[in-house]
Amino acid sequence: MKRAASTPPPMHGNEMRYNPATGRWVIYALSRRQRPRELIGSREGARTELAYDELCPFCPGHEQDLPPILLEYGRGDSHRQIRVVRNKYPALTPEGDLKRVCQGMYMRMEGYGHHEVLIESPEHNRQIPVMTPEEVELIIEAYHRRYLKLIGVQKNLLVVIFRNYGRRAGASLMHPHSQIISTGVVPGHVREMEYRAQGYFDQWGSCMYCDMLAEELSAGVRIIHANRSFVSFIPYAAAQPFEIWIMPREHKAHFGDISAEEKTDLASSLHAMLRRIQERLNDPDYNYVIHSSAKYRSDEPQAHWFLQIGPKLTTRAGFEIGSGMSINTSLPEDDAAFLMPDPLPEKGAGNASQE
Amino acid sequence: MKRAASTPPPMHGNEMRYNPATGRWVIYALSRRQRPRELIGSREGARTELAYDELCPFCPGHEQDLPPILLEYGRGDSHRQIRVVRNKYPALTPEGDLKRVCQGMYMRMEGYGHHEVLIESPEHNRQIPVMTPEEVELIIEAYHRRYLKLIGVQKNLLVVIFRNYGRRAGASLMHPHSQIISTGVVPGHVREMEYRAQGYFDQWGSCMYCDMLAEELSAGVRIIHANRSFVSFIPYAAAQPFEIWIMPREHKAHFGDISAEEKTDLASSLHAMLRRIQERLNDPDYNYVIHSSAKYRSDEPQAHWFLQIGPKLTTRAGFEIGSGMSINTSLPEDDAAFLMPDPLPEKGAGNASQE
Repeated sequence: MKRAASTPPPMHGNEMRYNPATGRWVIYALSRRQRPRELIGSREGARTELAYDELCPFCPGHEQDLPPILLEYGRGDSHRQIRVVRNKYPALTPEGDLKRVCQGMYMRMEGYGHHEVLIESPEHNRQIPVMTPEEVELIIEAYHRRYLKLIGVQKNLLVVIFRNYGRRAGASLMHPHSQIISTGVVPGHVREMEYRAQGYFDQWGSCMYCDMLAEELSAGVRIIHANRSFVSFIPYAAAQPFEIWIMPREHKAHFGDISAEEKTDLASSLHAMLRRIQERLNDPDYNYVIHSSAKYRSDEPQAHWFLQIGPKLTTRAGFEIGSGMSINTSLPEDDAAFLMPDPLPEKGAGNASQE
Repeated sequence: MKRAASTPPPMHGNEMRYNPATGRWVIYALSRRQRPRELIGSREGARTELAYDELCPFCPGHEQDLPPILLEYGRGDSHRQIRVVRNKYPALTPEGDLKRVCQGMYMRMEGYGHHEVLIESPEHNRQIPVMTPEEVELIIEAYHRRYLKLIGVQKNLLVVIFRNYGRRAGASLMHPHSQIISTGVVPGHVREMEYRAQGYFDQWGSCMYCDMLAEELSAGVRIIHANRSFVSFIPYAAAQPFEIWIMPREHKAHFGDISAEEKTDLASSLHAMLRRIQERLNDPDYNYVIHSSAKYRSDEPQAHWFLQIGPKLTTRAGFEIGSGMSINTSLPEDDAAFLMPDPLPEKGAGNASQE
């Protein structure tokens, strides 16, 4: 791919960009721009060096305290072992009813859904960057199996797979783990993104995300990593510094359709990106989440699943709450250049893994 | 008002509620419910005891380093003095142009807008809870004057007034201050709330917020404070613990229409709520923001301005990012009861101030 100047022709002073996928304007406050190094270290809580913590419920030896194991597998040795259990303190439970109940002018329902924890390793400190790509692939495999299982349950309308790393990102336990939540409603936030993609399709006759991918490959200034099946880039209107989208090259609306080859390549992309963040940004707290279509939209031509990574480097404050707009002190092109350590990939070299 | 049992009849297990104003579902995770005391102390950075900090740019004596003063007034003594200046590191600047520029499939524009700082007191540690209600009224007065000034500028389509308190809430300086930002676009987030209110009006023929106020007064289990002009309550589907809405009793779409009497009463309500939060929740970081109509909607029958306070007690994590839903571990009725210290107000006593 072509590597142009890191920043597009400057505008007068500050700049605003519109993200057509989310419908959100983002303010790039260049007068308060921070150098990447000044963003670094926004994390909370010490990282552990210990492979075993006797107080950790996810470390081996506490099996009797865990809820029943829903899925467990590995590659023969305990270093490559995955466990999925029901969350001991679930936000949603499968016993709930979807019936809506009026309460004055308001409405409520029971908290129906599934809330699972995926314990990624028996080792307390074996976070993704120090795993082998094969171990990361086991995690993706577990995501896929649980996704198919949960979306197959009639009452589930959405399955959200996510990982919170560090206290600022909402994690209370440091043991390597992800979470999976299914819901019996489609949240307004998800519907809005669907509507925007539908409107784009109605206007242009193509998938907005496929077009975005083509645009990014052509511009070549926000891409950090690419392999056979995935392209990792900072979106044009990233809402926060070093936000990364890992986009499958193949158009598929829902994560359940991921192929075996794609699982291998997603593991490789995710591993590369989390390593890059850890090394370059001093191991910040982060969240990642897999955006996939709501049920019944899984075959539609405008929907396209992807994985979004958000390092916790800044704070959502009053203006964001009131307007829904973000103030980002860092331009996507500069963030991409900062995270791009390798020799620049050549145009057309996108089919080979960069790592 | 009637004070019913603190919690409505329980549902089976967890509960979900729908907020018709935001279109967001909220999950009440009662199995992971925390007692208010466990939420306390979620703040970052020590509070200062000093009335003067020689390194603080907002303390007296640094006037020559401040941008030109846009508004300055008080009541004769320096303890009651307000200053509004242009933000030295503005996110948006009035020199910008509103012209949209295409960049491949994307779009951007210059960062047009105004970004002002309202220095609330010459004293470095004179936060709102230790002010007199009269001093707080001076702040509201300054909000009002700047709001009218900014919304009167032709290119401004929205004015957002907000206050970030503490580092977790995004404040970098502790000196008492608020911020005002005007934008030349109406963000999607604001339009969505307008559409929801419009849909409600089209269906029921009344303002959703007026109906909400009537509902809250009738239920009487989520109200914390009421006076002549304002009712302060935890919304039925509050997205986070101890979220407070201060709602004007009189239907007006935009903050610019606030009356003199309402300014006095808003100062009293805001003062009471911030004091209550400080005392009961151990002085947490918080944001508040005034939600007011976008330009050209200022006379419409479905829009209703209000002030929203959000203490920073929890963390937005992967599930919230992916789904737009919130997980709240605390029921609004219980939060309201925890913040309600006074003898319970009688039904019909709503016209008298509780403080």
